[in-house]
Amino acid sequence: MGGPLTGIRVIDLTWILSGPYTTMILCDLGAEVIKIERPGTGDIARGNRPFIDGVSSYFLSLNRRKKSVAINLASEEGKEIFLKLVETGNIVVENFVPGTMKKLGLNYEVLKERNPRIIYAAISGYGQNEPYALKSALDVIIQAAGGIMSITGEPGGPPVKPGASLGDIIAGLFTAISILTALEERHRSGEGQMIDISMLDCQVAVQENAFERYFATGEIPRPLGTRHPVFVPFQAFATKDGYIVVAIVGEQWPLFCAAIDRVDLIDDERFKDGYTRTQNYAILEPILTQVMKTRTTQEWAEIFESMEISCGPVNTIDKVVAHPQIQHRNMIIKVPHPKVGEVHLVNTPIKLLRTPSKISRPSPELGEHTEEVLRTLLGFREEEILRLKDAGIIQLVECHP
Amino acid sequence: MGGPLTGIRVIDLTWILSGPYTTMILCDLGAEVIKIERPGTGDIARGNRPFIDGVSSYFLSLNRRKKSVAINLASEEGKEIFLKLVETGNIVVENFVPGTMKKLGLNYEVLKERNPRIIYAAISGYGQNEPYALKSALDVIIQAAGGIMSITGEPGGPPVKPGASLGDIIAGLFTAISILTALEERHRSGEGQMIDISMLDCQVAVQENAFERYFATGEIPRPLGTRHPVFVPFQAFATKDGYIVVAIVGEQWPLFCAAIDRVDLIDDERFKDGYTRTQNYAILEPILTQVMKTRTTQEWAEIFESMEISCGPVNTIDKVVAHPQIQHRNMIIKVPHPKVGEVHLVNTPIKLLRTPSKISRPSPELGEHTEEVLRTLLGFREEEILRLKDAGIIQLVECHP
Repeated sequence: MGGPLTGIRVIDLTWILSGPYTTMILCDLGAEVIKIERPGTGDIARGNRPFIDGVSSYFLSLNRRKKSVAINLASEEGKEIFLKLVETGNIVVENFVPGTMKKLGLNYEVLKERNPRIIYAAISGYGQNEPYALKSALDVIIQAAGGIMSITGEPGGPPVKPGASLGDIIAGLFTAISILTALEERHRSGEGQMIDISMLDCQVAVQENAFERYFATGEIPRPLGTRHPVFVPFQAFATKDGYIVVAIVGEQWPLFCAAIDRVDLIDDERFKDGYTRTQNYAILEPILTQVMKTRTTQEWAEIFESMEISCGPVNTIDKVVAHPQIQHRNMIIKVPHPKVGEVHLVNTPIKLLRTPSKISRPSPELGEHTEEVLRTLLGFREEEILRLKDAGIIQLVECHP
Repeated sequence: MGGPLTGIRVIDLTWILSGPYTTMILCDLGAEVIKIERPGTGDIARGNRPFIDGVSSYFLSLNRRKKSVAINLASEEGKEIFLKLVETGNIVVENFVPGTMKKLGLNYEVLKERNPRIIYAAISGYGQNEPYALKSALDVIIQAAGGIMSITGEPGGPPVKPGASLGDIIAGLFTAISILTALEERHRSGEGQMIDISMLDCQVAVQENAFERYFATGEIPRPLGTRHPVFVPFQAFATKDGYIVVAIVGEQWPLFCAAIDRVDLIDDERFKDGYTRTQNYAILEPILTQVMKTRTTQEWAEIFESMEISCGPVNTIDKVVAHPQIQHRNMIIKVPHPKVGEVHLVNTPIKLLRTPSKISRPSPELGEHTEEVLRTLLGFREEEILRLKDAGIIQLVECHP
């Protein structure tokens, strides 16, 4: 299967979303990801709807290509198997409530004793330390706490959450960056280290511009529909039959005025640059929304494109799937799955041209790789594996597909 | 200043947002980022409002700690200086319209001749190749094209853009991951490579769940206000005096019913699990919205917290700045700036505990480091530097602060 991270082994304790998103990225790039799951239930995301032929599409999407090893970490023998895996690995990732690993006796300090080169990444809502470490921190709680819901929505309207679980996913992205940075550092120092990622911190980091505007002006940023805070027009408009997004940059205002047949606006002092158009938006808005409703999306697109004014449609998800460039870049892939037949997945957007990777394996059954990993990686014999299974320390999949 | 990426040198051709966000992350982690700017104007983000004492807060935020070297890349001598820098560097990043570097004669193939180990990352709206490569692709255009605007907003309402420039910023995050992955791969292969990141691909990647739901059910995902597509309740509610976010997971529904004094709902078949509550949301919604308006946010918070039900406020940006955990984790920092005095910046959320980094230098003046870099890195002598300056090939800052 290959990929640029071939040879990197990740011992993956993550569940639901933020952590699995991190390890999905590493796995997509060729790392070997050994997902440690609790016997019986596994990652609770296996129960998230909707299902395809009884398999969670949520789980399918996030866990493609990973190996599932089911171990009971509450048992002493289970802990020892985990520690042996840590000795063979490069990276451990977990997104438990802070303190969980310490309660299990498997915190970083313990792991480091067994493998000083291990890189240990912990993701949590608020970070590993007080005062907020133990507060419950699901995606929507963090998107609300971090401010993005206060700057998303219609002007004057209620708060709106961006339509993706960005509280989790953005933390997953920063965790991947952190892990790869620690790997790079380890080439020089020879040592691993602990990484402490807070979902709340990550929310603040991606809203840097809202914070900078607040620091610069003292004004609290508010929701703006589809508008940009300092460029106008730079938004979606309703047309005769739908919506169109238009973005005017630099010196294009006169061109735009010509396109909408309102050359009288060109010399209007109130609208001479992005700043004054933002200041006088209350006056400009009704003029623009009215004129934009006079033509269809297609008509406007032809006019704007002929003038090299940036514009585009507001695509629904089905339109994105069918988008010529998304197809061209192979962003929607099909992977065979023993139960589901073929599953559609979103491909990685990470295109390293000399070392491409291919997602050729679906998400695993619970415990699908327990036997393989214990046997080949840790050297356990058949009878030992059966004893551990009978003792409820590990779970195997009886019938391999 | 230190940091885990100390010793990594980035030759940075980026401007505005997506590329500068990538190189900001690398720079925050200790990489040396040499920002190549056009003499005279520099990165046009230097002109973005609002200003603090004449300095763009937008530019300040994204370019802290970087070095500015002003070179005219249209001139032959300018190109040669750039190529000499590439010989000394590890990474080149650019976010021009595809084809720009080729027109300059500075495309990857040319750079690779001079330094086969160079990692060259290109960010664009749609990727480097046809059919969409040359289409204009500003943040709002990509957020509309990629689908997130179609799943953000009020149910039945117009499309809404998430309140941050996530089209650019998420591409910046994936580019940082790509570069660090290529660095890791280079330790084994000894070779650099080209990276081709499309902002549109990245939008699709972070909406993986919306795409999976569409593949699983054929239903086109729609905006849901603050709701989650499969968990209910998992959203913001208006209270007597504001909003509160509540997130019910697993078996907490009876607990929640008790909290809102509606134990009669516990045994209602229509609401027995997250799936049926989602299916019957039209019936459940008026019940919940009505009851949630009967108490203040603080009253609800006390009730839910006493029952360990996840809840939290919808914070505005000022409240986030003052948040105890944000303060505790030092997420808002102050950096001295020669013109502005002290600037407030959002700190990096990447906490590598053994190798912390410190953002101790502000964004540079245009050409502030031209002389230093040419002299110390490339060995240019004083008279050569003055000749290049007089010829308009480079720009220096006359008075060093």
